[in-house]
Amino acid sequence: MIRPTPAIEAIPATVPFVGPEQLMRETGRSELLRLGANESAFGPSPKAVAAMTAELSRLSWYGDPESLDLRDALAVKHRCSPNQITIGSGIDDVMGLAVRAFVAPGATALTTRGTYPTFNYHVIGYGGRLLFAPYRDDGMLDLDAMLEIARRERPAIVYLANPDNPSGTFLTRDAIARFFEQLPRNSMFLLDEAYADFVEETDLLPPAFEDRIIRMRTFSKAYGMAGARIGYGLASEANVQVFQKIRLHYGINRNAQIGALASLQDEAFRNYVVRETAQARSDYYALARELALGYIESCTNFVCIDMGSAERATGIMNELLRRGVWIRKPGAPPLDGFVRVSAGTAEMRREFADAFRAVVAESPVEAR
Amino acid sequence: MIRPTPAIEAIPATVPFVGPEQLMRETGRSELLRLGANESAFGPSPKAVAAMTAELSRLSWYGDPESLDLRDALAVKHRCSPNQITIGSGIDDVMGLAVRAFVAPGATALTTRGTYPTFNYHVIGYGGRLLFAPYRDDGMLDLDAMLEIARRERPAIVYLANPDNPSGTFLTRDAIARFFEQLPRNSMFLLDEAYADFVEETDLLPPAFEDRIIRMRTFSKAYGMAGARIGYGLASEANVQVFQKIRLHYGINRNAQIGALASLQDEAFRNYVVRETAQARSDYYALARELALGYIESCTNFVCIDMGSAERATGIMNELLRRGVWIRKPGAPPLDGFVRVSAGTAEMRREFADAFRAVVAESPVEAR
Repeated sequence: MIRPTPAIEAIPATVPFVGPEQLMRETGRSELLRLGANESAFGPSPKAVAAMTAELSRLSWYGDPESLDLRDALAVKHRCSPNQITIGSGIDDVMGLAVRAFVAPGATALTTRGTYPTFNYHVIGYGGRLLFAPYRDDGMLDLDAMLEIARRERPAIVYLANPDNPSGTFLTRDAIARFFEQLPRNSMFLLDEAYADFVEETDLLPPAFEDRIIRMRTFSKAYGMAGARIGYGLASEANVQVFQKIRLHYGINRNAQIGALASLQDEAFRNYVVRETAQARSDYYALARELALGYIESCTNFVCIDMGSAERATGIMNELLRRGVWIRKPGAPPLDGFVRVSAGTAEMRREFADAFRAVVAESPVEAR
Repeated sequence: MIRPTPAIEAIPATVPFVGPEQLMRETGRSELLRLGANESAFGPSPKAVAAMTAELSRLSWYGDPESLDLRDALAVKHRCSPNQITIGSGIDDVMGLAVRAFVAPGATALTTRGTYPTFNYHVIGYGGRLLFAPYRDDGMLDLDAMLEIARRERPAIVYLANPDNPSGTFLTRDAIARFFEQLPRNSMFLLDEAYADFVEETDLLPPAFEDRIIRMRTFSKAYGMAGARIGYGLASEANVQVFQKIRLHYGINRNAQIGALASLQDEAFRNYVVRETAQARSDYYALARELALGYIESCTNFVCIDMGSAERATGIMNELLRRGVWIRKPGAPPLDGFVRVSAGTAEMRREFADAFRAVVAESPVEAR
């Protein structure tokens, strides 16, 4: 056969996220209680649905390759210029652009072991070398450890998610600002704010788009548009121009742009989702306490519950799947003894609680 | 500022396609007669619209990252295995994967000067070097010239579109098969079949997925889903596995998958679009004859009309835009004296004909 380029050949075959559709085929189920991918169980804004419905018959026209209207609206929201915004088909896309643009083959990129794996996927995919900081034992990102590695290794990119995935923890604006200031001047700070809509904007960095920071946002979480694939990067104009040279200009679904714009204009719906999500977290905390299990307080739409060991957490996850309940779990210590469950509707939470109680009861904690 | 990698810095700032939305802003118009991007004026299948409408409220769930149902349906259509199909957010996406996978930095890729420019965009973007064959004077791809260059330069990829864009011409299955067989064994044949739905499947290569050919299809043209961004590659299982290592697994809009699947099941609608498109071509031919202008017989949803010189073609295109009619024109000789107009509905064709007659009358042919 024709061989791919040496760089592509060198990439190991990847096991990406296994999607619930694949799991349904494997388990012969026609549906699952979907609490594994931190999707919004509260749906998209009805106003977004209405706007998209009205435009579906015009889906034969390409969407605006520059997303002019959406970028104008986002510029107002973020008090910046539309020229400081790159639209992508989800944060995954924007992240890929950032890695491709700033991580040369053989260069390093720093992340936390066990956090959002798609960053790693891109770094490996573009021939970079990953450096890992560990989580702290309390589930927080270890900024001191990251800084120490960053100073020593001078990575091309330093990545973190805040609020964090999979821990759900949140670092204050001051902590993030201090961290950013202490990074080596040649390290790009790639700040994944996928879950930012669940915290107050005033608790996040103010809009100041230096060349050495790229922030990423999405409509997939509080705005309930995960299936639409639309997210964006907030960056300096110079960096947006870099992305203009390599991005897929016609990559964004027309209706995703329309739905995202309508979602932005429905702040009441976002507030409703944020409130419901807070209630879901409380319910999960209460469930964990009832079962004498630890958990991590979360600022996101998911909660990590401590099962005591990676083996038990994996067993619980698999047994839940057997019963039609789909959750995931962190893959690396110290969080690998937890399971991670996404915020569901009240009914989904009850279903989850019933299954979880039963499965936990059948899975005694082993002597350590 | 932090510099991008040397490879990215070396990419010249690109002027990608200027979208009609940008042109509307520049000209202060709230709408344009859109005949510039070979979109389908006949819309998506009503069955696809119905299927997508029914699912919009579930857009908060990610689409299937493996597009299992859609790939199953496509496998039936193409008499192949789902493992020989890669779904992308349009052919542009699949094309980017092919270039990334098979064109190493500094390697060459062969295309025809003036054909679909996004292939060039990807080759430059991944550090490849473009080789160009000219069109023949009759607007056909020059397979002999391509073979000669391919044998001499041994490019990593040889790209062509059949039916071709922007000429609209079509090479027979036998001509394509012979061309493929004569290519150097280490050149990947990247065959863009975006407009294949306007010809008979029996006039195309049979489904045989060798490692050295990748065929690309889209739902953007006859299926009327350009705004959805969904297309696919037909390739060997080995090559699909290569794409699995680098593609954006969560890049495809959930509703695009649903609409594409429903479209496939509505062959009657596709046939209607193909018939209407043939009528549109006939109308454009008649219009050209009425105005004593040459044209190229097309097998696609657009027609190139000969304005005699690049200057006149550009002038006509710009004057049409001033009147709210958006078309495009080929950029390289020998086709740069043509304008290219997409198939519109009967009403759009009448509007175009009125504007075109007026503009042509005001733009006399200059003495050569």
